[in-house]
Amino acid sequence: TLTLDELKRRRRKTVTATLECSGNGSNPGFMGAIANARWTGTSLRSLLRDAGLHERAREVVFFGADEKTEKVREQDFDMKFSRALALDDALADDVILCWEVNGEPLSAKNGAPVRLVVPGWFGIAWIKWLERIEVHDRRFMSKYMGREYVTIRGEEVDGEMLWRETQVGPIATKSIVARVTKRADGALRITGAAWTDGTPLEKVELQIDDGEWIKVELDRRNRTKHSWTFWSHIWKNPPAGEHKLVSRATDVHGRVQPALTEAPIKNKRTYWEANQQFPRKIRV
Amino acid sequence: TLTLDELKRRRRKTVTATLECSGNGSNPGFMGAIANARWTGTSLRSLLRDAGLHERAREVVFFGADEKTEKVREQDFDMKFSRALALDDALADDVILCWEVNGEPLSAKNGAPVRLVVPGWFGIAWIKWLERIEVHDRRFMSKYMGREYVTIRGEEVDGEMLWRETQVGPIATKSIVARVTKRADGALRITGAAWTDGTPLEKVELQIDDGEWIKVELDRRNRTKHSWTFWSHIWKNPPAGEHKLVSRATDVHGRVQPALTEAPIKNKRTYWEANQQFPRKIRV
Repeated sequence: TLTLDELKRRRRKTVTATLECSGNGSNPGFMGAIANARWTGTSLRSLLRDAGLHERAREVVFFGADEKTEKVREQDFDMKFSRALALDDALADDVILCWEVNGEPLSAKNGAPVRLVVPGWFGIAWIKWLERIEVHDRRFMSKYMGREYVTIRGEEVDGEMLWRETQVGPIATKSIVARVTKRADGALRITGAAWTDGTPLEKVELQIDDGEWIKVELDRRNRTKHSWTFWSHIWKNPPAGEHKLVSRATDVHGRVQPALTEAPIKNKRTYWEANQQFPRKIRV
Repeated sequence: TLTLDELKRRRRKTVTATLECSGNGSNPGFMGAIANARWTGTSLRSLLRDAGLHERAREVVFFGADEKTEKVREQDFDMKFSRALALDDALADDVILCWEVNGEPLSAKNGAPVRLVVPGWFGIAWIKWLERIEVHDRRFMSKYMGREYVTIRGEEVDGEMLWRETQVGPIATKSIVARVTKRADGALRITGAAWTDGTPLEKVELQIDDGEWIKVELDRRNRTKHSWTFWSHIWKNPPAGEHKLVSRATDVHGRVQPALTEAPIKNKRTYWEANQQFPRKIRV
């Protein structure tokens, strides 16, 4: 057992990373569940290495302080909130046990005294009110691994729908149009943000009124591997009236942010991993 | 897509391995769901390597031909039986796509035309009627990964019961007393079998009438990494009357087959991974 003071005496590590709820953008009323911040704490990898890892170690399991009675196979169990990372994911460079955000102490609401920070992963992996870490030799399951936070998606294979269930984990490649401002010369400055699971962005494109996709300018300043990227585009001489703007991000592995009408989103039956494109309307 | 003929033209591989149902031994009426056989097919690793693996590959997913309508989050889905192995487990040396057992064609009941053979793992991983193999970049879930075939086990931690759910996977260290025969000199020859997930056995012990644990003789002939080990013990001059015999196996990682009254079994709330000791009664 380590006290918070003992944890704080370990080498400090700060990572800048985007935290997104895996349900963010699943409906028009749920759009702001994302933030980019500087998270400070200590390296999980260094802690696990100091504790020593058995040759059978495969899985790192995290337990929060929050507890609920859960019915599993007709029986009631008082269970702590718990989720796991595969050992390799837990040993990634930027995973930290965090007690400070943007230079301020972490708030109780945000998981104080200590929360897990897993850059590149949806918020569900960033366990709050962390109480206990275990290393297992087999895969850990829990309500939030095997039953909730599972994406159900279909794909047409040989004329039949093949349904697959996959665990919510790394962030899906995504972008949004955030803001449009009018310049003195009458042009519009369209800005937005794009983010990935840590895979470098290949490009962000903007479509105006169902026209061609236009590559926008990426702002590479002050970026870290896991922080979002701002982008901008100048639209010269926009005609008066209502217009539709929509952006899409593509990462270097070729993962493209899909439209609402495209199969990866159309055949998704759960709201997690809602990385569809978001058309926005403006009036000039 | 590969036809069965194309599969059979690949390099043949035979592995001798013990197949055990993960519910085997969960109650006195369910004891025979175990067998040791020579399984012949072709290496999954070689097939995956020939197909080529993406740098993001993490999980290998197997779909059987058997299909069922499943209700997930209040919706009905026609789903093929499916389970996954982590990439490293799928690339293990002895995993094969099998069409022959003990030199005979695999029967339909046993999964013909092709079943997966995963030595050291409970039967649930040995997918029958294999139709489709996919490689994914994230963890695959399904009824048989996240909801069924999950062991619920409690452990007392600081005076509180901590419940954990873990996926059924590798075989649990186990042994049984199989047979007792009387020799001409009046001694009893007690024989049995022991098996593990492939970890070498450290020892098998026998207890007679709640006495001391006695190390028994292991028969190391004709063994492979994944086949069970026969053992025997000669009990000289057994007194007449009823006796209780019970065995326990220990592997080189120190995993000991627990008694029914010990915490790992006493606090297990599901019937999978029933590796408790099995006392047997005999009358001399």
